[in-house]
Amino acid sequence: MSVPAHVAFAGGEIGPWRVDHLEALVGPPLASVARVKVQEGRGGVAGTSTWVLRGVTSSVRYTNRTERDALAAGEEALGRSEATRAALIPITKSEAWWNLAQDERRQIIEEDSHHIAIGLEYLPAIARRLHHGRDLGEPFDFLTWFEYPERSAGAFEELVARLRTTAEWQFVEREIDIRLVR
Amino acid sequence: MSVPAHVAFAGGEIGPWRVDHLEALVGPPLASVARVKVQEGRGGVAGTSTWVLRGVTSSVRYTNRTERDALAAGEEALGRSEATRAALIPITKSEAWWNLAQDERRQIIEEDSHHIAIGLEYLPAIARRLHHGRDLGEPFDFLTWFEYPERSAGAFEELVARLRTTAEWQFVEREIDIRLVR
Repeated sequence: MSVPAHVAFAGGEIGPWRVDHLEALVGPPLASVARVKVQEGRGGVAGTSTWVLRGVTSSVRYTNRTERDALAAGEEALGRSEATRAALIPITKSEAWWNLAQDERRQIIEEDSHHIAIGLEYLPAIARRLHHGRDLGEPFDFLTWFEYPERSAGAFEELVARLRTTAEWQFVEREIDIRLVR
Repeated sequence: MSVPAHVAFAGGEIGPWRVDHLEALVGPPLASVARVKVQEGRGGVAGTSTWVLRGVTSSVRYTNRTERDALAAGEEALGRSEATRAALIPITKSEAWWNLAQDERRQIIEEDSHHIAIGLEYLPAIARRLHHGRDLGEPFDFLTWFEYPERSAGAFEELVARLRTTAEWQFVEREIDIRLVR
């Protein structure tokens, strides 16, 4: 997807996604909510929300052509009817991360941590969309949204556990893990 | 600079920078104005403006460690008293550009076009700050702001002329050139 899409994730009492679990893994917590609504576009979110997290899809920042072609060949769209599980994982990285040069960040993300390669292993079951919040002045640098069928719940646990042991994750200074069921 | 700074460039009748020349080089024009005001922060711009262009400074997207250290060693801050000339160059790149993978864009920007290396040749005389607009939903993907002393006006012409002949510029589908005097 090339044209940036603005997306709001609204936590509150309404929305198609019921919160099964919400936990702060690193840093300050996020208020518990019963449901989450995902709304595309830059407008306001109708109704009352306990929190609204915003991000924008963007051009790829680290992915090279070979990796991008592999992702495109393997990935499924969001909104599959069988994908009744979702996860929203808001993350903020440290100043040390953002002060690195481009080649240093790429080295840590892929050559050291294999972030892209690990994600590829879980396609097509686990669909994923990354939203950037940092340049919008949002509290979270990244909002990653995952959708998967119930039968892939174990694979999803494995995926996030593997990523959290990487060198890249040493730069994560805030991480919330929100699991959802539709 | 690591923390993103939101900056608004307001064109109208007020502001410290007088417009000496405003020209659309590629694509749709931008309305002529007498003066430009530069305002940091995400708030509204006081007074009436003919147009307001917004962007955000961000982490480096292509610059490697060696280049970044060379830039940091050579560059001067904005706001030097002797820098009485400025240029604001809003640019939008094509969908073809944004559909490229990261390594392909880096290849074009630096290995083919030497964008970073060319900019380094004109330090410290020509100070520069890049603002990103694309992910904000702005009409221009980039707003580059330059400040330089009057004696460096010839060097500035040479700099922009060299960049405009590069492979990277083949992806520019809109470019406005605004020259300012304080």
